[in-house]
Amino acid sequence: MTATSIDLNCDLGESFGAWQVTDEQAVVPFIDRANVACGFHAGDPTTILKTLKLAKEHNVAIGAHPSYPDIAGFGRRSMNISDADLHALILYQASAIDGLAQSIGCTMSYIKPHGALYNDMMKDDEVLNSVMQATQSFHGDVALMLQATNRWQSHQAMADALGVAVLFEAFADRAYTDEGLLVPRNQPNAVHDHAGMLKQAQDLIQEGYICSVSGKVLTLKVDTLCVHGDSPDAIEGVKAIRALLSKHAH
Amino acid sequence: MTATSIDLNCDLGESFGAWQVTDEQAVVPFIDRANVACGFHAGDPTTILKTLKLAKEHNVAIGAHPSYPDIAGFGRRSMNISDADLHALILYQASAIDGLAQSIGCTMSYIKPHGALYNDMMKDDEVLNSVMQATQSFHGDVALMLQATNRWQSHQAMADALGVAVLFEAFADRAYTDEGLLVPRNQPNAVHDHAGMLKQAQDLIQEGYICSVSGKVLTLKVDTLCVHGDSPDAIEGVKAIRALLSKHAH
Amino acid sequence: MTATSIDLNCDLGESFGAWQVTDEQAVVPFIDRANVACGFHAGDPTTILKTLKLAKEHNVAIGAHPSYPDIAGFGRRSMNISDADLHALILYQASAIDGLAQSIGCTMSYIKPHGALYNDMMKDDEVLNSVMQATQSFHGDVALMLQATNRWQSHQAMADALGVAVLFEAFADRAYTDEGLLVPRNQPNAVHDHAGMLKQAQDLIQEGYICSVSGKVLTLKVDTLCVHGDSPDAIEGVKAIRALLSKHAH
Amino acid sequence: MTATSIDLNCDLGESFGAWQVTDEQAVVPFIDRANVACGFHAGDPTTILKTLKLAKEHNVAIGAHPSYPDIAGFGRRSMNISDADLHALILYQASAIDGLAQSIGCTMSYIKPHGALYNDMMKDDEVLNSVMQATQSFHGDVALMLQATNRWQSHQAMADALGVAVLFEAFADRAYTDEGLLVPRNQPNAVHDHAGMLKQAQDLIQEGYICSVSGKVLTLKVDTLCVHGDSPDAIEGVKAIRALLSKHAH
Repeated sequence: MTATSIDLNCDLGESFGAWQVTDEQAVVPFIDRANVACGFHAGDPTTILKTLKLAKEHNVAIGAHPSYPDIAGFGRRSMNISDADLHALILYQASAIDGLAQSIGCTMSYIKPHGALYNDMMKDDEVLNSVMQATQSFHGDVALMLQATNRWQSHQAMADALGVAVLFEAFADRAYTDEGLLVPRNQPNAVHDHAGMLKQAQDLIQEGYICSVSGKVLTLKVDTLCVHGDSPDAIEGVKAIRALLSKHAH
Repeated sequence: MTATSIDLNCDLGESFGAWQVTDEQAVVPFIDRANVACGFHAGDPTTILKTLKLAKEHNVAIGAHPSYPDIAGFGRRSMNISDADLHALILYQASAIDGLAQSIGCTMSYIKPHGALYNDMMKDDEVLNSVMQATQSFHGDVALMLQATNRWQSHQAMADALGVAVLFEAFADRAYTDEGLLVPRNQPNAVHDHAGMLKQAQDLIQEGYICSVSGKVLTLKVDTLCVHGDSPDAIEGVKAIRALLSKHAH
Repeated sequence: MTATSIDLNCDLGESFGAWQVTDEQAVVPFIDRANVACGFHAGDPTTILKTLKLAKEHNVAIGAHPSYPDIAGFGRRSMNISDADLHALILYQASAIDGLAQSIGCTMSYIKPHGALYNDMMKDDEVLNSVMQATQSFHGDVALMLQATNRWQSHQAMADALGVAVLFEAFADRAYTDEGLLVPRNQPNAVHDHAGMLKQAQDLIQEGYICSVSGKVLTLKVDTLCVHGDSPDAIEGVKAIRALLSKHAH
Repeated sequence: MTATSIDLNCDLGESFGAWQVTDEQAVVPFIDRANVACGFHAGDPTTILKTLKLAKEHNVAIGAHPSYPDIAGFGRRSMNISDADLHALILYQASAIDGLAQSIGCTMSYIKPHGALYNDMMKDDEVLNSVMQATQSFHGDVALMLQATNRWQSHQAMADALGVAVLFEAFADRAYTDEGLLVPRNQPNAVHDHAGMLKQAQDLIQEGYICSVSGKVLTLKVDTLCVHGDSPDAIEGVKAIRALLSKHAH
């Protein structure tokens, strides 16, 4: 398998009121997709609108980044939420982003769950099904972004059955197990250094695979790479990956 | 002036999580417009979706009922919010309602600010202008519902200048001053009894005017009457006004 | 084992802003302990103070009823919260109740976790340990109220090791399994009718045991019975149990 | 009038969950009083406890810094809150700080309202009276910190009548009008540069007065100077003022 078109996505709009984080101006020029916080883990309406304007300016695709309702926990704490509540929560948040985007002449084109909701969705097919159902219920033409794992074919089948488009994402800076999962952060070598990150990005972009920690070749389907913009070092990483993508495109 | 088509609107979706208020089933069959809470004074996403489904079932028009961000105060406390924040807050809330409505095949067709935001908008043209600008920025075709007062022509002109459609609303159960304003609730006879409410509704529906407390005839432009559904007595009132409207239509 | 002094506790202060629930006036005269919501699942500060005044008036002991931070979910959704956060959350909430109580000349004398936090504490000794540590850290002399189960001796030992006083509570209206746990609500006969509830209260008060669904005699240590005050029927139940207690005391 | 004992206070604990602000470690060694956010504009319970531990370590007095309930607005937006609600809100927040402080062996010794509540209290005697009443109702021995203005004697009299101790604070970095009020931030020269700030601090500490923008000598009663710790420059300012105080004390 050879990757033909991988793009870059980044979580944005994660300020809240007086708490301003991330110099978004620095990263937006180098990414393709902005996952915009929806107000439930971060992102007050004014912050959202500002981020959307920036995305528009740089012709970056807009995604909704919905979360469990947990500002104090930044959406990182798993919550035991009913299917009905989850359905409504996701549609509420995605709709808010889409409407704000439309007010400036853009549209929201995909949904990427945030934090604990993302993790729960990848671990529990019932949660994933709720998220897919909510995505399917959205009135516009939107895709669901989820993690590319060794189960990507099963996830693709679930999505196909519901008529939901999917975008598989991989992480350039995280080490993978032989099973195609992320090495947990509390283990050694879970996070690559700059060189390791570039190597992993290069493998994916040029060869279409990821090398696991033991050197096993993982041929995951990958549509998009998640990058970070929350530090000068992170920005350097994004620029370097962008350069790899440009080179590969020629 | 003879009123030709007055309809009935009612604030709905004002439960929040475990706190369930208003037996909405009872009032929805008798109204034309549901002003749906957007989550900032009441109305969690699940409640909103339930209310929208009920509105759809009874072919009732759907409006967004945005508020200052104040769950604990039910949106009844004035807040000193910047124009930029107000703009984004209103669009966020209206978008959430519209998107949830679209997920079940409906659309949101008007915005009626709630509580303290409604009062501030009627008292302060700068706030009203912000609200109108936000309404104008909404991507769909939506009107702004505001109070019919002695200043309705000036408000109509403001709206015309921005290209915003307006709906003027009156209150059947509230006494009016000679200046066309509501008698404040802390004054005697501010709220009509059942008979007084019916009389005021009848005057409006059949004659096109409202009698002030001193008996002055007020010829306000009125498109819609605000009714309440939060008690069996209130439901009886709505039914009686509905009957007046039906009789007048023939 | 013969029960010598069982008292009655009730969850109170569960209004929030405009949402007023429970006619607390009706139940407070018949109970011994008021578990007062702390603002994280219900109970805005004004509601709390009102409930505390009512408790004082009827000489009812005051407990803090802390919760996961989840107003929208009424504290009924389990959240994956770190020990450090849980410690601070419980102390924050208990302190707020104690300080408000002290402002009217009372003190808070026990902590009873609410909803999902209560359930998680009974299922997971790590959570229980965090709750006990927080209780132990409280500056005043406070007890922890927890459920009387077949593991009560182990729980007593944990509390003794930390120097924390405990109050074991049972439920009059809930059926018990042979293992001394509550029959889950989604199973038949999980909740007793009025007669069944009185029978269970009578067994406990007069004989010192609870009969399980299969008729097994459970000799749980029980210090307090949880009763409800949220309906006229519930109040009748409380009165009847109160009468049993008075009769037994003579 | 000669100032004999001016100390330094600083707003702290203003992180919230994932949003970490202010390197508090850097400023705490140089201040006398920590005004600790209470969770209503900033300061989740874990953040509060961490700040309290730091204050304890450096023997810094602990104050509660209560706010209107407005996380999204950082407590900077005026809200029209009833006296009863304000009373309960202040006691709730102050109690939470006091209880958390007591859990680590400290006590909370004063209340300084935050942001819009502070401004409203200084502009409106009814609000100030509510705040004083709440302070008076607190069970422990606590003072109210308020701004030293040309009305300080009247404020002192109000406090005396209620038996509330007061602490008057001045600002080293803000220019004063001839009337002893702060020059509004939207006017030129409202905020002093480093040299201007040091000059104003020196005047106060050594001479006991403040020079207004026009050069008028203002003899305000000042017990404490508000300093900031949210930038390296700010820390330098605090150190310089601390040095002035130490020099003056000898």
